[in-house]
Amino acid sequence: MRSSDRAADALRTVRLTRHYTRHAEGSVLVEFGDTKVICTASVEETVPPFLKGKGQGWVTAEYGMLPRSTGSRMRREAASGKQSGRTQEIQRLIGRSLRAVIDLDKLGERQVLIDCDVIQADGGTRTASITGAYVALADAIAKLLADGKLAASPLRDQVAAVSVGIVAGVPLLDLDYVEDSGCETDMNVVMTGAGHFVEVQGTAEGAPFSRAEMNSLLALAEQGIGELLALQRAALAG
Amino acid sequence: MRSSDRAADALRTVRLTRHYTRHAEGSVLVEFGDTKVICTASVEETVPPFLKGKGQGWVTAEYGMLPRSTGSRMRREAASGKQSGRTQEIQRLIGRSLRAVIDLDKLGERQVLIDCDVIQADGGTRTASITGAYVALADAIAKLLADGKLAASPLRDQVAAVSVGIVAGVPLLDLDYVEDSGCETDMNVVMTGAGHFVEVQGTAEGAPFSRAEMNSLLALAEQGIGELLALQRAALAG
Amino acid sequence: MRSSDRAADALRTVRLTRHYTRHAEGSVLVEFGDTKVICTASVEETVPPFLKGKGQGWVTAEYGMLPRSTGSRMRREAASGKQSGRTQEIQRLIGRSLRAVIDLDKLGERQVLIDCDVIQADGGTRTASITGAYVALADAIAKLLADGKLAASPLRDQVAAVSVGIVAGVPLLDLDYVEDSGCETDMNVVMTGAGHFVEVQGTAEGAPFSRAEMNSLLALAEQGIGELLALQRAALAG
Amino acid sequence: MRSSDRAADALRTVRLTRHYTRHAEGSVLVEFGDTKVICTASVEETVPPFLKGKGQGWVTAEYGMLPRSTGSRMRREAASGKQSGRTQEIQRLIGRSLRAVIDLDKLGERQVLIDCDVIQADGGTRTASITGAYVALADAIAKLLADGKLAASPLRDQVAAVSVGIVAGVPLLDLDYVEDSGCETDMNVVMTGAGHFVEVQGTAEGAPFSRAEMNSLLALAEQGIGELLALQRAALAG
Amino acid sequence: MRSSDRAADALRTVRLTRHYTRHAEGSVLVEFGDTKVICTASVEETVPPFLKGKGQGWVTAEYGMLPRSTGSRMRREAASGKQSGRTQEIQRLIGRSLRAVIDLDKLGERQVLIDCDVIQADGGTRTASITGAYVALADAIAKLLADGKLAASPLRDQVAAVSVGIVAGVPLLDLDYVEDSGCETDMNVVMTGAGHFVEVQGTAEGAPFSRAEMNSLLALAEQGIGELLALQRAALAG
Amino acid sequence: MRSSDRAADALRTVRLTRHYTRHAEGSVLVEFGDTKVICTASVEETVPPFLKGKGQGWVTAEYGMLPRSTGSRMRREAASGKQSGRTQEIQRLIGRSLRAVIDLDKLGERQVLIDCDVIQADGGTRTASITGAYVALADAIAKLLADGKLAASPLRDQVAAVSVGIVAGVPLLDLDYVEDSGCETDMNVVMTGAGHFVEVQGTAEGAPFSRAEMNSLLALAEQGIGELLALQRAALAG
Repeated sequence: MRSSDRAADALRTVRLTRHYTRHAEGSVLVEFGDTKVICTASVEETVPPFLKGKGQGWVTAEYGMLPRSTGSRMRREAASGKQSGRTQEIQRLIGRSLRAVIDLDKLGERQVLIDCDVIQADGGTRTASITGAYVALADAIAKLLADGKLAASPLRDQVAAVSVGIVAGVPLLDLDYVEDSGCETDMNVVMTGAGHFVEVQGTAEGAPFSRAEMNSLLALAEQGIGELLALQRAALAG
Repeated sequence: MRSSDRAADALRTVRLTRHYTRHAEGSVLVEFGDTKVICTASVEETVPPFLKGKGQGWVTAEYGMLPRSTGSRMRREAASGKQSGRTQEIQRLIGRSLRAVIDLDKLGERQVLIDCDVIQADGGTRTASITGAYVALADAIAKLLADGKLAASPLRDQVAAVSVGIVAGVPLLDLDYVEDSGCETDMNVVMTGAGHFVEVQGTAEGAPFSRAEMNSLLALAEQGIGELLALQRAALAG
Repeated sequence: MRSSDRAADALRTVRLTRHYTRHAEGSVLVEFGDTKVICTASVEETVPPFLKGKGQGWVTAEYGMLPRSTGSRMRREAASGKQSGRTQEIQRLIGRSLRAVIDLDKLGERQVLIDCDVIQADGGTRTASITGAYVALADAIAKLLADGKLAASPLRDQVAAVSVGIVAGVPLLDLDYVEDSGCETDMNVVMTGAGHFVEVQGTAEGAPFSRAEMNSLLALAEQGIGELLALQRAALAG
Repeated sequence: MRSSDRAADALRTVRLTRHYTRHAEGSVLVEFGDTKVICTASVEETVPPFLKGKGQGWVTAEYGMLPRSTGSRMRREAASGKQSGRTQEIQRLIGRSLRAVIDLDKLGERQVLIDCDVIQADGGTRTASITGAYVALADAIAKLLADGKLAASPLRDQVAAVSVGIVAGVPLLDLDYVEDSGCETDMNVVMTGAGHFVEVQGTAEGAPFSRAEMNSLLALAEQGIGELLALQRAALAG
Repeated sequence: MRSSDRAADALRTVRLTRHYTRHAEGSVLVEFGDTKVICTASVEETVPPFLKGKGQGWVTAEYGMLPRSTGSRMRREAASGKQSGRTQEIQRLIGRSLRAVIDLDKLGERQVLIDCDVIQADGGTRTASITGAYVALADAIAKLLADGKLAASPLRDQVAAVSVGIVAGVPLLDLDYVEDSGCETDMNVVMTGAGHFVEVQGTAEGAPFSRAEMNSLLALAEQGIGELLALQRAALAG
Repeated sequence: MRSSDRAADALRTVRLTRHYTRHAEGSVLVEFGDTKVICTASVEETVPPFLKGKGQGWVTAEYGMLPRSTGSRMRREAASGKQSGRTQEIQRLIGRSLRAVIDLDKLGERQVLIDCDVIQADGGTRTASITGAYVALADAIAKLLADGKLAASPLRDQVAAVSVGIVAGVPLLDLDYVEDSGCETDMNVVMTGAGHFVEVQGTAEGAPFSRAEMNSLLALAEQGIGELLALQRAALAG
């Protein structure tokens, strides 16, 4: 049995709190159970050097964890002077996921910088970040429309993400930290509102996995992401 | 008139929320109006190399700001690869302030690492950090006592801090960001429960200041810190 | 039509040249068409700090590209002072892939460091690296056995990898650089000799992809990796 | 009794040697007893990026210590790859102190870079640096006037600094290293020629300090800085 | 007797393989016995900032060793975050040596970046690098001429280099790693086709050396470089 | 004619001031005309990790320039976060030169750290550094002997250095900055008291140089170093 009597195919309680901090154009606190991430979207009227003068925008992301968001304190990356490989992997994944649902030409020559900062971690921080960052991005785009800086929304679709994995032979949706630490296979799945894949990253932590196992994990992810997409729509309508 | 009809000698609304995140031995959200800082205290059963084998403990602090805690996004220090001079100044100040009220011999050969992370900034983040960090430290010490790892508390006194400054010729208590940006003199004051000074850092941002002005600022700070000390006691009693 | 009249499900010419340089315990030049990577396996009778005294070994990998292995010169990472996010992602993937097929307890308290250095790039450098690195690792293990430092091989299985992708709607095996640059979906697949997955990393570069497309890519990858595993066995028997 | 039979309110022997090295526009060796600092002022006809095109100048400072300026050798900051928090605090203090007495609009779009390098340390290096740097700055401004690059001096006042502290209960002026190491309270005070404060930084190293103690320290500092201002005038008249 | 029955004044077998990799404008594998270095010349239609707008070109070099090019694995410089002093010395030497034989005005406002990457080391990597890099540079210049980007060659002469040293009292040409490790004096000599010196770097590793010893080493170097210059001409004619 | 009517084979005025600063075991101000370098020798009762437990000592050197020791201000290396290639070359040269005249076994398991800091530069800073550092080292060794920590001196010989070069076709001894900037060939020579070479580093800055030119430069250097050795002996006898 999972903690809190959760069923194998049940998400944790997911909350999306908009306007969480006051300065950013989009600011969302996303919670997947005890995992809590502040996602902000900041609009800047400039683009990175490689896009200068191309009439096209950019969306990029950065990710961080507060040192004591975890069970034992991690070293502060600003103090150690560099971001870990894990951090870079995650922020590249968040950025790619969001760029998959936005028309960068329609965004115009400006960029949206997404910051995902984990204030409490209990597994699934990268997929929670993507799910929350989409809402922050949508709020920032809404502000650009409201301010008359954009005539039409460059967003083509929604995007959300969830982790799935096999623990003691059982496929589970939305792993918490304890489950994630003991799983044989761990998979992060990112999908659009239209039900297509943006990213699939499966890793055998213990024994390698079969096609059949992969299929059952993808089915769980599809179901869970469907629920997350509905929660995003509800939050944005709220 | 100050924003929100605040009197010259009035603090903003100050809140101290204990147990804000779940992993740290002490975890406090401190709010001074719109300034919000998560302060955690992490206990580690080890000391820095320069204290190894001396039978004495250590308290140190780190400080950071989420990139979009401010009106325009700041570069993430973990991404730029180093902490700014301002960040280092602030975290050294927080560490010294807390060490002033703890008996490091009684703490034993362990350290308490304080992390102050600003999630929303509106002036006075360093003094809010000190005020909140004391409460997080007190909770961490209480846990060491409850766990039987300490027989007596090494805390000798409380410590709290506030900023004061002269704006348009008027001495003001607890400056917000707009006031801080326009002030002629800015002073950060750290005091103990016994009413003594731990740190006084006064800086002429505009015109140099006189002894008389300094005296009026110190009087304001003494009054404000008195109120903050009472709020700390109330929070810890809660 | 693909360059060189290659069929959609055909690998490029793959060569595995053992004993390519003379110092390393294992040293392999792996070629996938014009992609050429030197893979060395270095045995060190020590382990990283987090494994000290646990009686267990470690396998880790580093990856690099010569500055002019590519069409336009890339900045040397040693000169810029840090490894890119892409480099870190790749070397973490190589390390995880190899650890999936080795029994670290049987390896004993020593580590094997894998270095994959691309001397000429034409797409698929990370999957070529994994495929070549396995052979270098097998040679290093054989040397430990021959030297009497190990009584039994800790290798549990083979591991190989290939990239697959959808270009202009057609699933293709083993993309070269031109194909990789223009593909809609890109997937790197790592499998064991037993036919199970170690890693699946699929990314929508253009339009998001469907389950059906994913299935056809995985089928192509399984076939290609089967051929690579046979080439590894032939090389090691040679 | 203090070393050298110095009275509690006596400065050490202070010397200001102008034109100490030949390349800089201003170059001063400042000695406070055995503390010796080379202060140079370098004029550059450019400003930092944040001031470009604003018709305004800038004054900034850097600080360093020769590795063996101290009793035991310190690690060279250029070799360790970063400046310590202490170094950054000091150079920010020097820069702010000098900017307090110069009209940056009148300076025009150019900057003066102050370098304070300690060749022998015996306490009070930061306050000696400020006192010497003012003279170097005045020489650099005089050269700009002599060269016809400035029509009127942008200097509005003098600035000098001294440390004061409480040792064994006694307030002392201008602490040497031994006194500084043993003091209960340490205060650095920066004042203008007009007798106003630019910076007051008081720190309880041991027991927290009272308002009365603070007042006696400020009085000592006022007296000492008065003498230093006279020495600066004499040096510049020389 | 030297390994391989080599005479004191004999070079190791030297091979210069042009067009070794396919992307670079010049790409040469140079082998001095078991020392193997890939030298590429990359043409970029830009110059470093200090040469912008001066109508003059630049040639510069970078040097690296694969981590396991040596007997025991060296730490990867990209991973440690900086290039060693030795690496920087060598790449500065290679750059100066090549600039000595090229007319930078005639090269026009473009630069040639030389990369020398050691894939297997057995002594003399820096002199092999210079000898091979000249051929790569000549190929890159030939391509600029063939493409009509240059009307006349800016190359004024050839340049080649060799190491010489005194081992057990005997002057030897072209030291391998074992000889180099045990030598009393080590000298690297760089000469032009016209028989003049570009660089002479002699170092007493053991006992200081006399003028007579120096003369005998220079004579050996002149002879060896004469042979290397002939091998370069043969390679370029091939 | 050279500046100051100096003959082609004349040194500038050379001064060696011992006990220049008070903390270091050896502290010398060396002046070659307007080039002024503070050389300190610091004794530490420890050795670098690679020598631990071998019963042998070490001598190493670090080099730096004050930012405004030169005609135009250089960026402070501590602020830029790394030492330049030139700095590293120079400090490696100083260290090798001093180790050539000391018996590291006799020094015992301790190290002498040499710091050479240029406070004013006018050409020849590296050779002045070596010449001055030898005197500082000799003073530090004398202190170890006086303190009874060494029974016999590990110094085997003196060492000194000078630059020579060809300017407008004329070989000159001890180049100042203007001569060094315009020279065709630049050579730094390090020799022992016994008249043997420790280092010879000749570089063609303009046209490559002949054997004859090299011979005349070496002769000049031998003569100049002879004078420097005598000045060292006089200083140490003083």
